[in-house]
Amino acid sequence: MSEDNRIKIIPLGGLGQIGMNITAFEYGGSIVVVDCGLAFPEDDMLGIDLVIPDVSYLIENSEKLRGLVITHGHEDHIGAIPYVIKQLNIPIYATKLTMALIEAKLKEHMIENEVERHIVNFGDRVLLGDIEVEFIKTNHSIADACALALHTQEGVIVHTGDFKVDYTPVFGEPIDLQRFAELGKQGVLALLCDSTNAERNGYTNSEKAVGKAFENIFEDHDDTRIFVATFASNIDRIRQIINTARKYGRKVAVQGRSIENIVVTAQEIGYLEIPENTLIDIDQIKDYPDERLVIITTGSQGETMAALNRIANRQNKWARIKPGDTVIFSSSPIPGNEKAVSRVINELTLQGADVIYQDAHVSGHASKEEIKLIYSLVRPKYAVPVHGEYRHLKAQAYIARDMGIPKEDIFILQAGDVLSVGRERADITGQVETGSLFVDGLGVGDVGNVVLRDRQILAENGMVMVIAAVLADSGELVSGPEIITRGFIYVRESDEIMTEMSEVASESFRKLSDKGVTDWNKMKSVIRDDMSSFIWGKMKRRPMVMSIFIEV
Amino acid sequence: MSEDNRIKIIPLGGLGQIGMNITAFEYGGSIVVVDCGLAFPEDDMLGIDLVIPDVSYLIENSEKLRGLVITHGHEDHIGAIPYVIKQLNIPIYATKLTMALIEAKLKEHMIENEVERHIVNFGDRVLLGDIEVEFIKTNHSIADACALALHTQEGVIVHTGDFKVDYTPVFGEPIDLQRFAELGKQGVLALLCDSTNAERNGYTNSEKAVGKAFENIFEDHDDTRIFVATFASNIDRIRQIINTARKYGRKVAVQGRSIENIVVTAQEIGYLEIPENTLIDIDQIKDYPDERLVIITTGSQGETMAALNRIANRQNKWARIKPGDTVIFSSSPIPGNEKAVSRVINELTLQGADVIYQDAHVSGHASKEEIKLIYSLVRPKYAVPVHGEYRHLKAQAYIARDMGIPKEDIFILQAGDVLSVGRERADITGQVETGSLFVDGLGVGDVGNVVLRDRQILAENGMVMVIAAVLADSGELVSGPEIITRGFIYVRESDEIMTEMSEVASESFRKLSDKGVTDWNKMKSVIRDDMSSFIWGKMKRRPMVMSIFIEV
Repeated sequence: MSEDNRIKIIPLGGLGQIGMNITAFEYGGSIVVVDCGLAFPEDDMLGIDLVIPDVSYLIENSEKLRGLVITHGHEDHIGAIPYVIKQLNIPIYATKLTMALIEAKLKEHMIENEVERHIVNFGDRVLLGDIEVEFIKTNHSIADACALALHTQEGVIVHTGDFKVDYTPVFGEPIDLQRFAELGKQGVLALLCDSTNAERNGYTNSEKAVGKAFENIFEDHDDTRIFVATFASNIDRIRQIINTARKYGRKVAVQGRSIENIVVTAQEIGYLEIPENTLIDIDQIKDYPDERLVIITTGSQGETMAALNRIANRQNKWARIKPGDTVIFSSSPIPGNEKAVSRVINELTLQGADVIYQDAHVSGHASKEEIKLIYSLVRPKYAVPVHGEYRHLKAQAYIARDMGIPKEDIFILQAGDVLSVGRERADITGQVETGSLFVDGLGVGDVGNVVLRDRQILAENGMVMVIAAVLADSGELVSGPEIITRGFIYVRESDEIMTEMSEVASESFRKLSDKGVTDWNKMKSVIRDDMSSFIWGKMKRRPMVMSIFIEV
Repeated sequence: MSEDNRIKIIPLGGLGQIGMNITAFEYGGSIVVVDCGLAFPEDDMLGIDLVIPDVSYLIENSEKLRGLVITHGHEDHIGAIPYVIKQLNIPIYATKLTMALIEAKLKEHMIENEVERHIVNFGDRVLLGDIEVEFIKTNHSIADACALALHTQEGVIVHTGDFKVDYTPVFGEPIDLQRFAELGKQGVLALLCDSTNAERNGYTNSEKAVGKAFENIFEDHDDTRIFVATFASNIDRIRQIINTARKYGRKVAVQGRSIENIVVTAQEIGYLEIPENTLIDIDQIKDYPDERLVIITTGSQGETMAALNRIANRQNKWARIKPGDTVIFSSSPIPGNEKAVSRVINELTLQGADVIYQDAHVSGHASKEEIKLIYSLVRPKYAVPVHGEYRHLKAQAYIARDMGIPKEDIFILQAGDVLSVGRERADITGQVETGSLFVDGLGVGDVGNVVLRDRQILAENGMVMVIAAVLADSGELVSGPEIITRGFIYVRESDEIMTEMSEVASESFRKLSDKGVTDWNKMKSVIRDDMSSFIWGKMKRRPMVMSIFIEV
């Protein structure tokens, strides 16, 4: 069958309507996995810490696995690696910084010695079974990001990873547009392209623009302390803050575990050179006048436990806001974090800080014109928009159509879809089992929808328990019923509502006894229903009602 | 004492750092209350439906109450009226539409016959004890909004309410700038001015701009059905949608309770005249071709139960999205709703709709230049920024300083602050008791921080109960311990973890028995602690652990 020669593209790990950043590419007898990201829980996933992909399909096909190839070191591309690697034996390929970040994760999970790892350079081509993977330089909000060309006998697939086109990057080279062009000239079957900013017109600004903004702000605030909150992983941003600080004669202190770690890591691998006498320890800030200080912090997303929020709330040991301080948010809120960010801005403002949250940030993702540029260089036969919410994928689909790709050659995939791509045609040829697993504490997958539904009910209205000691056979009430509530309403033992609920439960027992009901399940259900009706009728509330019998 | 002659301004109903929209103005022996709004719960107020102000201060001073004056009919200005009016006997003064909306609320609470009400017109002056209240025309995203001038023997205070400057409103007059100027010429003590958009540069666009945007969109989508989601209370917006529909030969159907109600109300009071043969019932849409239909819906904020979300999720009886439909969001997300809105956009897109969420909305609040305009006309001695988060109030404070008001004459008030304003000076002279009450179901104020903390714990990690029947005096275990969990992890009776927890509890009982402990409180606390430690050690989770004894 000619079908057998096509390349299969399978996004895994569903969350909502689309997959996470983990995609299997299957050709011949080989599977190459690209990225292995986690997702952060949605609002209704109460108590969940992280969401990771279900990789059953990879486990079932473990004999075909040739390599896990990572495009860059953001959490949504590397965060699930420790969890997945515990289930799969697969070597990892990544650029230098990306690998350093992965290694830190493996160490945390104490599995760094169990994983085969290969650091690659831009331009490298690695043969992984029947698929040769080529690493191509791109630009993004983290250093060392790359696109991939997957070469097979059937043809080439290009995967951009997360990217932007930065002609004037702060460190390293611009995106290797020539290589994209060369691949396009030779012929590319499918392009998987970043959609995150596919709704934005024009071009995304160069990272260098932020440096200019910093200079203006430092110029205008030359007599105050300056705090800058930013994303830990954006080393170029940190570099620019440090450079601006030096230019204006300021020392730099760093606050927040993730930024402290990345500064150490980046220095170790030679990605961040900080001149002597620039960095100071946070406990030294008291020794310098305000206008000689910059403090770089975590917490630009309003995270409760991060440095900036703790500084704002006077919980940080070394730094507190005083009137006149300048605080720069070198970030924009990730959707869903707007309110948390605003809360921190309010708190900082309340304490007298001058908060600047405009202009000091650029996105790491390509806008419409950059996406068009990539399409014109690569000229793929098939378009597969990736990265982003469904609306973003759809926005890229429109761009692809504008670029002349017929509607039927554009594929928006759902998690588990198997897209078979060949010289003659491409279509969805099947589905594999996948989905998401919830990580809660040390548990992976032991919290599912039933548990979440219970948490939702408990969160909304708390619970009311009817507790009774009952004779096993006769169902006769020996002690109780007692009423206990948690998270319901503020009540004391002596409150009328407690007496009323007690009477409702006693009445249920009487009724059951009169009818001669002795089946515990039946009894419990009647008691639960009576109590629920009473509470709804009286208060229009629906707590979780439980009837708990103990046998004596 | 000269102090006695000053006017007291007291914001009530604290939520976070600032008050809700309810402010007491006290002069001589008279109190006039301006607005009476509710707030929507913050993310951590689990299960709370609404937040209303604590008006203890007004209850204590009920003999001074002269009137409740309302600036406009948005929920954050009228929503708490039914709750507050049950505690206070106070006549209400409002313009026509505002009063119609208030009356709908009073009817819902079945108290419409217990409240004295006065409809006022722009330009009216109403003497309320020692304070004469003047109603001044403004523009806002709801019709009939007004500013207030509070005239006293000590001087005049101007309160803008929520406002913008719209030179070309869709209905009615522009804001009465001349009256603001006249008052300013005569001398104004204090200006309380809307801060919501005080961070935005320039001017807020006229409502008419939205009409132009609608025309462009209707022109471009002349062969599809058009859905428009907007705020129910924005009658001018609804008017513009209807006018555009007529121009392009479309019938209009309305979906969603709040919009259906407002369309009826607005027609009844003559604020919305819909030509015959324009409005059709929702169940008639099947009788018209797509290009002849506009459906106006609620749900522009992504609300789960609103019409648009139900249409997107195929739960609406009459309307479903089909490929090619155009959906316009004539709104922008209120902070905190961004993710919910995005979820609906994704769902609509997934079903094939072309979703338009740019250009079809303007704000109802004054931007920087409009705020400056009001300051130049009114030229107050004191500035009291109101409406908005702390950051917005602060942004207006900067504007006030730019406009020449000395720093010490600008007051950002917290809930309960008493600002005394006089000809000679203004300062904060005290605090009154106030705060927020949570409304949950029919309950007002019976859910407080203890209950919310319990709900938080239950939401995060669920609960584990250790249940035992115990002899009253000796504390001897008669039956159990049994383990029951809810919202914790997915477990079956037979799972190892259940056995382990059972053993932990049994071991606690043995230990207590060996030590001869018979005090129930002591016993319960040991059992709870042992179980919590075990669960934390094994799973790094912290459910609510309860030990429940029943006496036999």
